[in-house]
Amino acid sequence: MLSGLSVIGHLCGKVQESKLFAFSPVKGEMLVEGFSIASEDEIEKAIHLAHLAAPAYTDIPAERRAGFLDKIAEEILEIGPVLIDRAHLETGLPEARLTGERDRTVNQLRLFASVLREGSWVEAVIDTALPDRKPLPRTDLRKMQLAIGPVAVFAASNFPFAFSTAGGDTAAALAAGCPVIIKAHGSHPGTNELVAQAIQRASILCGMPEGVFSSLIGEGAILGQQLARDARIKAIGFTGSYKAGMSLFHTAANERREPIPVYAEMSSINPVLVLPSAVKSNTVALATQLAGSITLGVGQFCTNPGILFVLEDENTTTLTQALIDSLKASASGIMLNKSICQSYYDNKSKLKSLPGVITLTEGEDASEAFKGAPALFKVNAADFIKEPALQEEVFGPASLFVSCSSVEELLIALNVLHGQLTGSVFGEAADLNEYKAAIALLQARVGRLIFNQVPTGVEVCHAMVHGGPFPATTDARSTSVGAESIRRFLRPVCWQNCPAELLPAALQNDNPLNIMRKINGNYTRDAVIE
Amino acid sequence: MLSGLSVIGHLCGKVQESKLFAFSPVKGEMLVEGFSIASEDEIEKAIHLAHLAAPAYTDIPAERRAGFLDKIAEEILEIGPVLIDRAHLETGLPEARLTGERDRTVNQLRLFASVLREGSWVEAVIDTALPDRKPLPRTDLRKMQLAIGPVAVFAASNFPFAFSTAGGDTAAALAAGCPVIIKAHGSHPGTNELVAQAIQRASILCGMPEGVFSSLIGEGAILGQQLARDARIKAIGFTGSYKAGMSLFHTAANERREPIPVYAEMSSINPVLVLPSAVKSNTVALATQLAGSITLGVGQFCTNPGILFVLEDENTTTLTQALIDSLKASASGIMLNKSICQSYYDNKSKLKSLPGVITLTEGEDASEAFKGAPALFKVNAADFIKEPALQEEVFGPASLFVSCSSVEELLIALNVLHGQLTGSVFGEAADLNEYKAAIALLQARVGRLIFNQVPTGVEVCHAMVHGGPFPATTDARSTSVGAESIRRFLRPVCWQNCPAELLPAALQNDNPLNIMRKINGNYTRDAVIE
Repeated sequence: MLSGLSVIGHLCGKVQESKLFAFSPVKGEMLVEGFSIASEDEIEKAIHLAHLAAPAYTDIPAERRAGFLDKIAEEILEIGPVLIDRAHLETGLPEARLTGERDRTVNQLRLFASVLREGSWVEAVIDTALPDRKPLPRTDLRKMQLAIGPVAVFAASNFPFAFSTAGGDTAAALAAGCPVIIKAHGSHPGTNELVAQAIQRASILCGMPEGVFSSLIGEGAILGQQLARDARIKAIGFTGSYKAGMSLFHTAANERREPIPVYAEMSSINPVLVLPSAVKSNTVALATQLAGSITLGVGQFCTNPGILFVLEDENTTTLTQALIDSLKASASGIMLNKSICQSYYDNKSKLKSLPGVITLTEGEDASEAFKGAPALFKVNAADFIKEPALQEEVFGPASLFVSCSSVEELLIALNVLHGQLTGSVFGEAADLNEYKAAIALLQARVGRLIFNQVPTGVEVCHAMVHGGPFPATTDARSTSVGAESIRRFLRPVCWQNCPAELLPAALQNDNPLNIMRKINGNYTRDAVIE
Repeated sequence: MLSGLSVIGHLCGKVQESKLFAFSPVKGEMLVEGFSIASEDEIEKAIHLAHLAAPAYTDIPAERRAGFLDKIAEEILEIGPVLIDRAHLETGLPEARLTGERDRTVNQLRLFASVLREGSWVEAVIDTALPDRKPLPRTDLRKMQLAIGPVAVFAASNFPFAFSTAGGDTAAALAAGCPVIIKAHGSHPGTNELVAQAIQRASILCGMPEGVFSSLIGEGAILGQQLARDARIKAIGFTGSYKAGMSLFHTAANERREPIPVYAEMSSINPVLVLPSAVKSNTVALATQLAGSITLGVGQFCTNPGILFVLEDENTTTLTQALIDSLKASASGIMLNKSICQSYYDNKSKLKSLPGVITLTEGEDASEAFKGAPALFKVNAADFIKEPALQEEVFGPASLFVSCSSVEELLIALNVLHGQLTGSVFGEAADLNEYKAAIALLQARVGRLIFNQVPTGVEVCHAMVHGGPFPATTDARSTSVGAESIRRFLRPVCWQNCPAELLPAALQNDNPLNIMRKINGNYTRDAVIE
């Protein structure tokens, strides 16, 4: 069933001697299928095809690109249980979670199809000529967003669908009009191949230019770096570790002549601020909710709550105990792969060794079975403030309880907090008002500010921001999830004094696409009256 | 009149032993006023104040920030002829040009004030809760753009107003809600001081937080690098040479932990494609227009047309001769400073020495008087295609005529063209249609595509794009001129499940700011109905 070959445009790669094998955390062994590591020639071919396809693909009307995205969604769904089974084998994630993630990925493709059909994503801005203006006339100027060029997307291990082959960056780039080259994740090459072939089928069926999509098998240190260095690659989308993300960022900055956008989502500990009223009103329910978020997906979400700020009072002990009880009741789960599981135990040990850290609960080491056991540690805010290493992500079902003896101490702790994808606040109305200063500090450090909900669970919609200040990402100006992520792969172009017959449809006087435009400073769907 | 001191928040810097003196290309000598080079303590103080001011300034209602921008405009105008005189003395630019540039700078501040008052610049996006959605409910999500933090702006020599102290980046950053620290340009420190004091007065009069603006005197290699390295600086705006721009880019990428946006506008040769019909119909008028653009402001515009692509035919000689005549009739003009003038002659010599380059006309070397003499060189497209050095900017009143023997050769030449701020096409309707492929190649390489107009002259308006692919800039995703430049200094933040009373005004249900918003995928100024 699986060919083990890279997908290069409308063809497959060749069988190579060097192969990559996936490890199954479910079976506890390497899977038998070998995946041929793309040769230099194959990498070159994929880049060359993407470069050739870029102008043609950008010029395809958005309506046809929408059809292509819908077709990809359809082809992915048509793979059926085979896809879910393979993903389960390769990632250890349970079937229900994988089905949900696949559906979310399909929804994301369809969201972009709807954004393309609506059309206003091009952000058309028109200033009409003012020939009689003094002292100088104004010429006609019309601006819209255009595709930036071929994008290299680095798949993530923790979301084999939503942040991988047909995930957010792929969907956004294809929607924007940019060809995509995937660097498949070594943990789930079979899942990648099934999805890549679905995209390839959709591309052929929809008559897309051949180079619009390729998916290459290879190591980050070789394939990844080669993609990042190539002059024909115009942007990078990445989700993964801090180390790998920063390595890509520095390669892009230093080993190529032209700087390009590097959207690396790296590490976030997703602080949760638990205000006194939240603890007082419903301690056990709150603890259950938090423990559920800490252990969800064996803690392998980018939005996992890795740190809890609590103001010490007479209810703290009850909350702490309820959290401990809840975490103790959570079973250890199979982690995504051997190295993630090993890192979890290593990072947990490192955290425990830092000054002032106390273990509140810690399940038995289950790394032999590739399972992550839940854990909760505690540190006083005074120690937290002194030690930046306490902010390093422990990827897995662990969290750090930071006990604050005063509001002042809480504010200082929040002030030294690094950038994050999310920040959550639990509290009743009066507390939310009283602790406004703390919430403002949190807001300045996050991409998404959440009230009385846990951070896990990222909605695919128009208003989502899944991004945030460094080190959560290398570029806080954008989101990797939701409709607005199309902006990652666009640049503005202005047409000056352009004859009507040469203007793109989005900028024509009569607004044939019926999109929202800004004309002489006013938003309207009306035609331009000259 | 001039104090020679840095402006640090609402105070001035101290008198320092190290001083910087401006050279007057008009007088041919150093001016007497010494400008104290900011000490390390002073630089630290400016950064510290900006860091402190950032949250407070961001929170000031946009309406009040608009008033601040208007007040800056007013204060700059009130300086009157003293400002124009000093700028003339320091830059050699004529009074009429300087008055026009000052007015354009004031208009830019006022444009941003109007953008803030209109309010939709926050790009509000709202997805309302869907509690009954299956399989999972959707929570309420609301997104808007927020200020990114303190911005370091590097003033340019060639626009002492529009790309300097109160220029585009300053206006955009202050509008966005970001404090600004200016690195004054060493060529016009007096002009800088007058404008910086105007901003300082406006800041005090409008009750802005002290650190919202500082202007520091110093060398790029010291002050500039220190600003770029500092963790509290969150973005950089720069206009200047390729070398200095890339140096800043690499410092920001490698000598600080957190990557930040670096908007460096560097070099552009602004290709002009002259199609056969344009040459045939009105040769002399076209030549006069092009020569006027080449020599405008002694060729010291970022949009100066440094390269002309012409399809060789029976009219080429007439065009060439008319261009030579026009350039010969243009007087040499005083250049901005000694080093720019010297570089002009050096770069011109270098260009002449490259294979296949012929001199069509070249005025006498007037570098003793700091004057740039117009020049036109010619090369065959075949040679142009082989030699990337022919694309290096010669900053001054020189241009390179690239003679193409066939359409195929023209297409190959355009295909190797580097990124540019602008590309211009001259031709009648039939030609514009016939040479669509050439125009498409140009479009892919520029920020602004111009039809039958010269590239010099940048309108300050909503639709302007003054930016473009590398090496024109380090970041093609934005513009440095016009209303859209506010985006440089913003990042998205999403509020999830936020109680109504804590939502920013832009995201409140009843839309108190009456701004355009995207609600559940639809653009509207209507209130949110839940």
